[in-house]
Parts: sequence; structure tokens; C-alpha cells
Amino acid sequence: MGRHKFYLDKLSRFFQIRNLLLRQALAECLGTLILVMFGCGSVAQLVLSGGSHGMFITVNFAFGFAATLGILVCGQVSGGHLNPAVTFALCLLGREPWRKFPMYFLFQTIGGFFGAAIIFGMYYDALWDHPGSYEVSGPNATAGIFATYPGNHLTIVNGFFDQIIGTAALIVCVLAIVDPYNNPIPQGLEAFTVGFVVLVIGLSMGFNSGYAVNPARDLGPRLFTAIAGWGVEVFTVRNGWFLVPVCAPFLGTIVGVVIYQLMVGFHVEGEARDFKSKLEESVALTDVPKNEKTNEKNKNMH
Amino acid sequence: MGRHKFYLDKLSRFFQIRNLLLRQALAECLGTLILVMFGCGSVAQLVLSGGSHGMFITVNFAFGFAATLGILVCGQVSGGHLNPAVTFALCLLGREPWRKFPMYFLFQTIGGFFGAAIIFGMYYDALWDHPGSYEVSGPNATAGIFATYPGNHLTIVNGFFDQIIGTAALIVCVLAIVDPYNNPIPQGLEAFTVGFVVLVIGLSMGFNSGYAVNPARDLGPRLFTAIAGWGVEVFTVRNGWFLVPVCAPFLGTIVGVVIYQLMVGFHVEGEARDFKSKLEESVALTDVPKNEKTNEKNKNMH
Amino acid sequence: MGRHKFYLDKLSRFFQIRNLLLRQALAECLGTLILVMFGCGSVAQLVLSGGSHGMFITVNFAFGFAATLGILVCGQVSGGHLNPAVTFALCLLGREPWRKFPMYFLFQTIGGFFGAAIIFGMYYDALWDHPGSYEVSGPNATAGIFATYPGNHLTIVNGFFDQIIGTAALIVCVLAIVDPYNNPIPQGLEAFTVGFVVLVIGLSMGFNSGYAVNPARDLGPRLFTAIAGWGVEVFTVRNGWFLVPVCAPFLGTIVGVVIYQLMVGFHVEGEARDFKSKLEESVALTDVPKNEKTNEKNKNMH
Amino acid sequence: MGRHKFYLDKLSRFFQIRNLLLRQALAECLGTLILVMFGCGSVAQLVLSGGSHGMFITVNFAFGFAATLGILVCGQVSGGHLNPAVTFALCLLGREPWRKFPMYFLFQTIGGFFGAAIIFGMYYDALWDHPGSYEVSGPNATAGIFATYPGNHLTIVNGFFDQIIGTAALIVCVLAIVDPYNNPIPQGLEAFTVGFVVLVIGLSMGFNSGYAVNPARDLGPRLFTAIAGWGVEVFTVRNGWFLVPVCAPFLGTIVGVVIYQLMVGFHVEGEARDFKSKLEESVALTDVPKNEKTNEKNKNMH
Repeated sequence: MGRHKFYLDKLSRFFQIRNLLLRQALAECLGTLILVMFGCGSVAQLVLSGGSHGMFITVNFAFGFAATLGILVCGQVSGGHLNPAVTFALCLLGREPWRKFPMYFLFQTIGGFFGAAIIFGMYYDALWDHPGSYEVSGPNATAGIFATYPGNHLTIVNGFFDQIIGTAALIVCVLAIVDPYNNPIPQGLEAFTVGFVVLVIGLSMGFNSGYAVNPARDLGPRLFTAIAGWGVEVFTVRNGWFLVPVCAPFLGTIVGVVIYQLMVGFHVEGEARDFKSKLEESVALTDVPKNEKTNEKNKNMH
Repeated sequence: MGRHKFYLDKLSRFFQIRNLLLRQALAECLGTLILVMFGCGSVAQLVLSGGSHGMFITVNFAFGFAATLGILVCGQVSGGHLNPAVTFALCLLGREPWRKFPMYFLFQTIGGFFGAAIIFGMYYDALWDHPGSYEVSGPNATAGIFATYPGNHLTIVNGFFDQIIGTAALIVCVLAIVDPYNNPIPQGLEAFTVGFVVLVIGLSMGFNSGYAVNPARDLGPRLFTAIAGWGVEVFTVRNGWFLVPVCAPFLGTIVGVVIYQLMVGFHVEGEARDFKSKLEESVALTDVPKNEKTNEKNKNMH
Repeated sequence: MGRHKFYLDKLSRFFQIRNLLLRQALAECLGTLILVMFGCGSVAQLVLSGGSHGMFITVNFAFGFAATLGILVCGQVSGGHLNPAVTFALCLLGREPWRKFPMYFLFQTIGGFFGAAIIFGMYYDALWDHPGSYEVSGPNATAGIFATYPGNHLTIVNGFFDQIIGTAALIVCVLAIVDPYNNPIPQGLEAFTVGFVVLVIGLSMGFNSGYAVNPARDLGPRLFTAIAGWGVEVFTVRNGWFLVPVCAPFLGTIVGVVIYQLMVGFHVEGEARDFKSKLEESVALTDVPKNEKTNEKNKNMH
Repeated sequence: MGRHKFYLDKLSRFFQIRNLLLRQALAECLGTLILVMFGCGSVAQLVLSGGSHGMFITVNFAFGFAATLGILVCGQVSGGHLNPAVTFALCLLGREPWRKFPMYFLFQTIGGFFGAAIIFGMYYDALWDHPGSYEVSGPNATAGIFATYPGNHLTIVNGFFDQIIGTAALIVCVLAIVDPYNNPIPQGLEAFTVGFVVLVIGLSMGFNSGYAVNPARDLGPRLFTAIAGWGVEVFTVRNGWFLVPVCAPFLGTIVGVVIYQLMVGFHVEGEARDFKSKLEESVALTDVPKNEKTNEKNKNMH
């Protein structure tokens, strides 16, 4: 076993990437791959089995817990956003630097692309066995396994509004979960709680167009389907619907950030700031050395 | 990023509300909004999709985890009641001041109103596409998406009893979860546990009239439907049924408080009191300084 | 509020029960009431709605999380057994005194009786509205809402075996969860884990006769139905089937205790004992005062 | 009770096994028995009730939480692998010695064998009552209760690929959960998280051939069915399909280990190594005694 460990160690040193941002982007890529692989896999199971091995609720559970698992796999390295809208929200609030945004967006989309590719390979036989193998619309369409398409009842305006609301709801809940001044859950359970958020969004906001609420989760798999045989129709169908789940979530992020900050965030933050300045005053009076003060502050924050 | 942070800080100071009760009421408003938005959203998904994107169990899960998320968003600020019946119970037990009750009731109802409004906007196209767009009763009724209505088999007396039992069950479980002398779960998991309570109530007490067990969750959305097009029938239908989910839960609260206190609460509280007075005696004998004693007591309580 | 607190305190002192065993029995009664109320409530919802508001999976979830909630309500006071079979297992292993067994059995059965009574009252109208209001057997039977009855395919021998296996599975899992030498989960999550055990038993062992695996959960509600209008047939049907879920679980308990102890329990216990005696030896050599040693031992156990 | 305790202690000493590897293998056997008993039990409930007491989602939940319970029962003793593929992954990474692999594989398969036997006994009457009592293929086949068989649409190549992907997904998630340098969840919740992994795999990768992703879970029950009456056809059907779920998972393990290590594992490990060597440098400079350094390192790792 000594020799085994030696080679493992050598491998580990050889493949180690020392650039932090690249390492984080790779982790996001794997996390989003897991989200899309399990999520789209459950849609494939529902569609291709004709309902015998899945229901809409199984898709909701799968996307929810897939988000949990994706975050668990990459969270310690990259924060586990899995969604450019989440990265955008944290940049808006100054908690992540803006230069992370394009890098994360790119690698999350790549992760979505390969997650869809894995499911395509896994269900290749079942897809050929299905009546509407490579159809984008109609009752036997299979393109909806990978990317989202609007229901027949939905106008493009309502669809845009749908994606804004869904993303705003996601962002309000995520901000509450990770707010450093309002940490309501035990450390280490964030991933599970975000999974419940995604589950609930699916249970109540999934009927209009399948709750993408995530540009990378939708664009990556859609690109894959365009290449894999469904063709350019995946982009042109319904007057370019594909732009809605790419653009609307960012507007929804802004709405969500504003609502959470106005109704909860600014006040808990302000309270912490007031508490801190009072502490500093009393510290100035009693003349405690600087580093001790910082310790005390940290204790109050965490 | 320095400039970005500077503006964020300025915004934060500008919008910070310093009145504690108003801040708490706003947080309750957002929490109840989330509860109603996700909860009624799942009913909308079930009704408007004709069952293809929902079942009764998805509504149960959605309301349960929506309660969890609502509590997580506002719990650190306002306690996360989301329900005037819960506020009432805590006032009865002397754990919250009575002046909070009307303020919380009002803002919870406002939250319910806007939660319903968001779902109305989100499913606007789907609602128009549905056969019974704005009907309050009959097989295609859609008013039940927002407020609760009794099943055809239900008399008003049984319906009243139904809401009393449901709320009493909720209150017994909530009191056990937050009892300071009987804390059975790790800190930070209260929101999840209350979510399970709401889920179980839905799984077993939802058939009669849809388990409102919460005056604000029912009244807020009902007011919205009266304005949005369903009209005054939402109040007059079934001989003024709307009064049942507004009044009966408070009676149920009293029943729940009495049962929990008589069978568990008084005894664990008494035990703690007995323990404390013994401790004080022994302290008096050994003459320990006052503040040290208090520390020890706190350790035993928490 | 001062006056309010004063009266509350007075009430609390008046109703406080100082006999520990009675207090524990009352808590078990409330816990089992909650288990049966939510559990049988979900069966009522399934049967009386004709499947529109429930499925077999909702019954499984309801019984599982009802067990969780029942344990949370009474666990700190009485241990949260909710089941004479669990009490029996802990007595067998010497972790509870035998005199608790009859007292707990009695009060758990009383809790089951009243839990059934509450559901009967709640769904009184729905019951009268149902075709087979008070039938014990046949396609419209409603007695199965409260107590368990065997499927048509089941012989009494297989039914007996079914209850033994189900209870043995329950006991093996419960013993692993509460084993003081093998504590695999964070403190405070026992109730949730037991809930998952009950859920899984329902998902995989519920088809034969409805997985009672609990004499009190079955006998209490059956007594209630005998009185409430279903009559003595609830006892006589299928050659006195009612004896199976009362007797077989205790045999299953013995099987479960033996399997767990032989395959896991004795060995982890023995390891702890070996560790302890080694510690004592080294302590004897280094001559550490007695009470310090005990502290160290406790630290290693917990 | 003194005498009772005395006999218990004597029994405990008599049956205690002191060989660590045997004790661990026995624990794995019980854990896998629980996994297969609950998992296959839920398939039996679905198949034999003709869908009235189960759906595909109940099978997914049962296998997921059965994995959780199996790990809880044996995890403290043996690590709770329940799956030769997991043991193989940990051996590959040098975290378990290779000599554990055959022993664990054998006892996990034995556990699977007896888990299937228990379910066979439990549903013996129901099996005889079922139209296709002992059929291996066709619409009434019951062999699929115990072992996995491919869907009609599946070729052997795609089936092989299916098992590789499923196992790789399992291994990536499990490695993230137990990675000592990337511990993302609170200690003691590993069993629950692995349960969610198994649940999600079932929700999204179960349609092709029933997601064995575990050679012991498939081979043990298949051996049992060969003996119990289904005969040698369980091995010969579909050109020896049984080899796929025995062999492919080990290939999938290698894929999963490589992907996780390249995209996350090597980097977090390398970071910890870099941190450690820096610490050692600074320690060398400031001349702190050796054992103190080790303590600090341990604190940083855990």
C-alpha cells in the first residue's frame, strides 16, 4: 500500500491546478453538470417511459435534490452557485468580485452542456424507441427533456413575467439562507435548504414553462440539442423563446435582491452595524487593544 | 468594487428602518407572502394543469416546505409565525406581548394578499385558458386556488370542528418544538420541523376544506380574489363560510395550548422551576456571588 | 403582562403532576394520540375522498412524520416510544425498568383510542357521505381507516410472519439509532430518523395488512371502532385477526433484539467495555483520583 | 433487574467477536440486508399489488432511505459501504486496505441474499396469488422484484453504459460527501446524504434497467431467486444480462474516481498539502515542539 499511496500522491501533485479562479470554475462546471444530469435525467425518465417511471413530482424532487448534490460536490471550492443568476446576485451585493461572473457563467453553461450529453448517451436506445425521437414541438416532442419550452397557453409576455417571478423567489430564499447577518440554519445545511427551495419552485411554478430560472441550466442543454440532432429549431421555435430563460432570470435577480434587502436585509445589516459602532465606542472608552476587539466582533457575526 | 460597496452601504443606511415592531411586521409580511405564493402556486398548478403537473400530495409538500422557507426568511427578525393563530398562542402563554398581535395579524394578511396577487399574475394566461376562469363554485371553480372552500359533504358545524382540530394539532406540535423547557431538536431546525407539521396536517386533515388553519393565509388571498374578478361571492358562498377559517383557528389555538400545557408543558416547566429553587437554596447556603448563579441557571435552561 | 404571567404561573403550579411515571405515561399518551391522529387521518383522507386527496404513499409519509412529531412532543419526558414493542425492547435490554411496560402499554393504547376518536369527529360528515359508512369488510369498508385488516390474499400464518418481520425491522433500526455505544446520528435527530424508519416500512411492508407493527396503534383505534358503531365484528372478522397485530409484534421485538445484538450490538458494547477496562488499568497505575477518571469515561461514551 | 443485567452482560461477553475484520464484515452483511429487504420489499409491494400500494417513486424513496438506514445500522463499525463499488473506490484511493475488498464483497452479497429471502417469505402468499408467480420475463414477471432486468428497448451496449454512468454518478457524490479535505456536511449526516444520492439516481436513471449500480445488491438476490423457484433463467435471460450489473459498476467506479479527483479532489487535497508544508516551514522557524504542531494540523483538517 506504500507504493500505491506514493503513486496517488504523485498523480495528485501532477494534476493539481494552482490558479484559484480556474479551480473554482471547474468545480462550478462539475456541480452544474450534476444538477443538469440528474434533473434532465428525470425529465427523460418521465417522457421516455410514457409516465410509467415518472411523474411531474419526480422531476421536482430530482431537480431539488440534484441542486443539493451539485452544491455539495463543489460548494467548498466555488460556493456552489450552479446558476449565473445566483452569481449575479452575489456580485450585485458586493459579496463576489464581478470578474467571477463571466467565468462562472461560461463554465456553468459548459457543465449544463455535458450534463445533457450524458443523459443523451444514457437514454440513447430509449430515445430511438420513442415515437417522436427528435421532435421539438408537438405531442411527442423530446426536446423538452433538455431545455425548457413554453406551454401552449403561454404568451411571451406572461412567460417573461413567469421567469422573473420564479428567479426572484429563488433569490429571496437563497439570500436569506446565506445572509451573513441573518444565518437562520446550522452551518453545513445550506445545500439541503437550497434543494428545498428548488423543489418548492418546481411544485408551484412549474406549469407555465418548466421553471428554468437558470440561464446556464437552459442554454447549455439547448446548445447540446441543437448539435445532437434536434437542429436549429430549438432556438427559433415560438419566436425565439430561448431568449426568455436566458435574459429574464437576471431581471428577476434584481427584483429579488431589492425585495429581500428592503424588507429584511438592510435592517439586519444595519442592526449589526449599529451594534458594532456601539461596541467600538465602548472599546475606545475602555481602551482595549485593537485585535481583541476584532475577535469579539467576529464572534457576534458568526 | 470600493465604490460599489460605498453606494451599497449608503443605500443600506437610507432604507434602514429603526422601529423594531415595524421591522418585525415587514418581515412577517414577506414570510407570509412566501408561504402563500408557493402554497397557492401549487394549488394553481394542480387546478390549471388539470392534474398533469400536480396532485394533492404536491400541494401538501409545497405548503409544508413553503412554511419552512417563509420562516427561514423572517424567523431571525420576527420569530417566523406566519400565522395569527401562532402569534395568539405565544401571547396567551406570555411569551410575546399582546400589542404584537394586531400588528402581526395585519401584516400577515397583507403578505397573504400580495402572495396571491403574484400567483394571479404568474398564471394569468393559464387562468384565462381554463374553462371556469372566474367561477367560485362548481366543478371548474378556480377561487379555491387562493382561499379555502368546504367540500360538498361538509356541514358548517363539522367544518368549524375541522378547523378547530387542525389548528389545535398545529399548535400542540409548534409549542413542543419551541418550548424553552423541552427543546427536543437542534437549534436552527425549527423551521424544517414546522414544515413537516404543515405537511402532515395536509396529508391527513386536508379533505374536508383544504386545511387553512391560518386566518391570514385564508383572508388575505380571499380579499384579493374579491377584488381581482371573482367578486363578492367569495364571501357569501355557503352561508358565509369565509368566517370559519378566520374564527375557528383561534378557538383551536386555545384548545391546543390547554392540551399541550396540561399533558406536557406544565410538568417540564414545573420541573425546571423546582430544579431552579433547589439550586437557589444550595446557592444561598454556599454563598456564591449572584451573577455566577445566573450563568449556571442559563446553562441548564438552554 | 405582569398579572398575566402571575396567573399563568399559578395555573402551572396547580396542574403540575409530581409523580414521574404518571407524567411520563401522560406524555406517551399524547405522543401516541398524535401518531394515530395524523396516521389514521391520512387513511381516512385516502378512503373517504375515493383517492382524490390521497394515495398509499401519502399514508406512508403521514405515518412516518406523525411518528416524528409524536416523539418530538413527548420524547424529552418519556423517551418517545409510542409503541409497546419499543418499550418491550428497551426493557429486554435492561435500559428501562419492567414496571414501565404495563403503564406505557395502557396509556399508549388510550392515546390511540382518542386519536381515532378525533379523526372520527373530524370526518363525521364525510363518513356518512361514504357508501359503506360502517362496514368492516367488503370493497367499501371503512373500519380499515382506524385498525388494520389483512388483505384477501393473506393467510393467518403469513400474516403473523408479516408482523414479526415488520416489527423486527423496526426494532433493529431503532436499536441502532439509540444504541449508546453506536450513536450514528447527531443528538436531537433521533425523532426524524425513526420517522424515516416508519416511512420505509410503509413503503415496502405495507401491502399484506397495513403495517401495524405496534399493538397500541392497532388495539386503541379498534376498541374505538367497536364502540363507535362498527360493532364487535372488528374483533371477530377473519377468525380473530385482531390478535395478530397485538401479539406478533412482541415476538418480532425479540427477533429484532437478538439479530441486532448478535450482529452489531454486542461487539460495539464489548469494544467499549474493553476500552474502559484498559483505561482503568492504566489509571490504577498512574493513580489518578477517581472522579477524574469517570469524567474521562463519560467523554468517551458520548 | 440486577440479575437481568448480569445475564445480559454474560451473553454479551459470550457472543462478542474480537476479530475486527469479521465484525466489520458482519455489520456490512446486516446493512446490505436492510438495504435489499426494504428496497426489494418496495418493488414487491408495487408489483404484487398491481400498482395500488406503490408507484415507481415509492421504490425510489424506499431504496434511498433504505440505504440511509443500512448505513446507520453498520456505519460506525464498518463504514457503511453496502456496495462493493464503494469499497472498491475507497481502496483505489488508498483509504481502505485492499484485503477488505473480497471480504466486504462476499458479506454484502450474503446480506443481499438474505434480504431477498426475507421479502420472499413476507410476500409468499401474495406471490402465489399473483398471475405470473415464478416468471422471469413477460408482462407478469416477478423476478424483477429481486434482481434487475433490462427494459425491452435496451441493447446490451447501452445497458453497460447505463450502469457505468449510474455508478460513476454515485461515486462522484459519495466521494464529495466523505472527502476528508472537502467535508461539506455536518458530521453524522453522511447516511442521510447518501440516501438522497440513491433517491436521485432512482428518480433520473431508473428507466433503462432499474439502477442496480451495486453488484452485491443485484447478485445476492439473483442467486436467491435461482434457488427459490425462478431457476437458472435468471442468469441466462437476455444473453447473460446478469453480468452487466456485476461488472459495469466497477468500471463506473474508476470513471467516477477519475472525474471527481481531476475536477475537485486533487485540488482541495493539494491546497491542504500546501497549507501544511507552509505551516511546517513557519514551525521550523519558530521552533515549536513537534506534538503541538500536529494538534494544530488536525484541527485544520477536521
